[in-house]
Amino acid sequence: MRREALARLAEERVDHRFKGLPPDADGLTVGELAAQRRDLFTGGFTTPVLTLSAEHLEHNLRLMQTYTARHQLAFAPHGKTSMAPQLFQRQLEHGAWGITLAVPHQVRVARAFGVQRIFLANELVDAAALRWVAAELAADPSFRLVCYVDSVRGVELMDAALRGGAQRPVDVVVELGAGEGARTGARTQAECARIAEAVAGVPTLRLVGVAGYEGEVPQADGERVRAYLRRLVALAAELDKAGHFARTDEIVVSAGGSAWFDAVAEVFAAAPALSRPVLKLLRSGAYVTHDDGHYRELTPFNRVPEEGAPEPAFRLWTQVVSRPTAAQAFANAGKRDAAYDLHLPFAQVVHRDGAEHAATGITVTGLSDQHTWLATTEEADLAVGDWIGLGLSHPCTSFDKWQLIPVVRADGTVVDYVRTFF
Amino acid sequence: MRREALARLAEERVDHRFKGLPPDADGLTVGELAAQRRDLFTGGFTTPVLTLSAEHLEHNLRLMQTYTARHQLAFAPHGKTSMAPQLFQRQLEHGAWGITLAVPHQVRVARAFGVQRIFLANELVDAAALRWVAAELAADPSFRLVCYVDSVRGVELMDAALRGGAQRPVDVVVELGAGEGARTGARTQAECARIAEAVAGVPTLRLVGVAGYEGEVPQADGERVRAYLRRLVALAAELDKAGHFARTDEIVVSAGGSAWFDAVAEVFAAAPALSRPVLKLLRSGAYVTHDDGHYRELTPFNRVPEEGAPEPAFRLWTQVVSRPTAAQAFANAGKRDAAYDLHLPFAQVVHRDGAEHAATGITVTGLSDQHTWLATTEEADLAVGDWIGLGLSHPCTSFDKWQLIPVVRADGTVVDYVRTFF
Repeated sequence: MRREALARLAEERVDHRFKGLPPDADGLTVGELAAQRRDLFTGGFTTPVLTLSAEHLEHNLRLMQTYTARHQLAFAPHGKTSMAPQLFQRQLEHGAWGITLAVPHQVRVARAFGVQRIFLANELVDAAALRWVAAELAADPSFRLVCYVDSVRGVELMDAALRGGAQRPVDVVVELGAGEGARTGARTQAECARIAEAVAGVPTLRLVGVAGYEGEVPQADGERVRAYLRRLVALAAELDKAGHFARTDEIVVSAGGSAWFDAVAEVFAAAPALSRPVLKLLRSGAYVTHDDGHYRELTPFNRVPEEGAPEPAFRLWTQVVSRPTAAQAFANAGKRDAAYDLHLPFAQVVHRDGAEHAATGITVTGLSDQHTWLATTEEADLAVGDWIGLGLSHPCTSFDKWQLIPVVRADGTVVDYVRTFF
Repeated sequence: MRREALARLAEERVDHRFKGLPPDADGLTVGELAAQRRDLFTGGFTTPVLTLSAEHLEHNLRLMQTYTARHQLAFAPHGKTSMAPQLFQRQLEHGAWGITLAVPHQVRVARAFGVQRIFLANELVDAAALRWVAAELAADPSFRLVCYVDSVRGVELMDAALRGGAQRPVDVVVELGAGEGARTGARTQAECARIAEAVAGVPTLRLVGVAGYEGEVPQADGERVRAYLRRLVALAAELDKAGHFARTDEIVVSAGGSAWFDAVAEVFAAAPALSRPVLKLLRSGAYVTHDDGHYRELTPFNRVPEEGAPEPAFRLWTQVVSRPTAAQAFANAGKRDAAYDLHLPFAQVVHRDGAEHAATGITVTGLSDQHTWLATTEEADLAVGDWIGLGLSHPCTSFDKWQLIPVVRADGTVVDYVRTFF
């Protein structure tokens, strides 16, 4: 990655653009504020403020580095989760092959920070974006982008946009859909073969493999997910046999979100040898922060505890502004601040005057745009002015509500700030 | 407002920070790109891209200016909706008294652009934020901030934070809750009186009125909402009679979201005279863009069509990237791009090769993080590469997913870019 672009993030000014940061830090650079090692609770931060655990982030980065190495998987963690170049850098330092992304804007962000290998886990048929990709490929021989195709029309649109502009072909993988009614991806091996033929017929594209997303297998369970992954591996073998990978030195076979990477590891380990070395590419992204809801329930580490356990790295701090009855309280975080698409946040701890106690008897029952609705039982010890620490569910819709996120040690010291680009 | 701060928005560089903008505009200033008067469909914009209708924005701004003037209401449109200083400026130019906001961070944004009157429609008990407010009040004699109190403890926390630092008192209004189980606000007139007494006992605060939010009246209907608003008006009269507004030249009575401002206009018009002039302050925010879902159903203009009709100003353009079966299609906008808390987006039009047709037979059935799920009937004319224009529901959760939004004329010309700060 481009170290000077990353370094410039520390030179950015702390100001009104960034929620939750101390008003008295206005005008400092991010680097200067980080160097002050402020305390989260006494350092002038305002609520609501989302935080990342320094220790849990590091733990999760190491955990998946170890996991993927143990299972001989290449790793392109999904960058759409965080859209944070500083985390991309740490993921690459922890052995990642590259970064996965979903839409052209995200590729632009990654390229602004010099990411060299990008796996665009989506179809890309936008002419303006393709012309830009072609220019990036032309300008930087070490840049590699792989994207999906799942229709002959898509191949035609890509070729039309790239004709004349592309100096080297764009690498594509055929996407195999995860089943009837599932998301993108061609539905049958025959359709995939037809698409591969179409790719072979245009000079602007080069077929380098197959990919899919087992997270969309209908009524997913271990058996159905493995069946789909075996179909994906079989598709690679079939296309290889038909000579479709003649123009590449390496065949890419990619799958793997954050709920079934144990099945991916197992099925990919059993895959037959192909005519060329195979890059078995896992794309999980949510692991980097993990969560207290959706992925807490779904992480494959629950099935293989002997391989480790991710730790939730987010905590959203919000202040109680109203306590109108013994049964109700309201805090100042809302839909603008917390993920709410899979679960509501979880009340975890209450911080008052430097001391913390468990959020016993406190439940989040709703979110308005700018308020957290809390139900409280007789057990709850909660007053106006208290800060509540909330756990979140779904990293992707947590990161995207914050542009500069304090990274906090367990002792409350803020040691860094993570910039996101959504 | 500070014209130089607004002018600096046009000097910002177009780059990877802003979704949907043309890659070939990288490095231009926003002002330079606006001056190019690009066409939305041929100008190199990438999908997904959220747009604002220039004509509908202007229509809505005028509509509420006329409406509030006709009903003799002062207007502090809720700025949390857009968090766009350029729109704040236009709202003030269209006669607004000030801007309503919800949390201290939003006040910081407004102050960075020189908003002089801020109605903070929320309790504020954060010591760091209060110290910053006190410094702003001290530095600028023409800055006025009014915020809520709804508890004696809140009054004590505010006073403790402001003691020593405040050169003039912070203006507060007592918030009357909208009913049992409703959101913030003291539940009874007796509790409100107790809070008013507490305010009178501290030198750092000055009571200037009452406020509430009729949008949270339980099982809201016209009758219940009017009953609550009459309680609010009666509270103002009671506190006035008890001498609580002795220190202010003007009494503030405020209510009014975007679903019941006709009831607010009616009840406020019938309010009795008080000992001082009354600022009857409406706070509606969603009108500025209106929408194609929630507010389309709820706008009071449906009950008073003779007073006008707001026009939906958002359209989210997304490209079809996959069409795996005759019954399914997938576009590249997802939860990162579209509001999904009240309704899913609505497929409105299909744009292909410069021509547009109605999105007949096309329904949005779901959103992934980065995909729109579309169900298509036999009537649907939809292919990979087409752009679909989606209507949205809920302006607040639409604006907050975009930092720089093209403003487009009906003929497709992009004439401006609106910057948001979330």
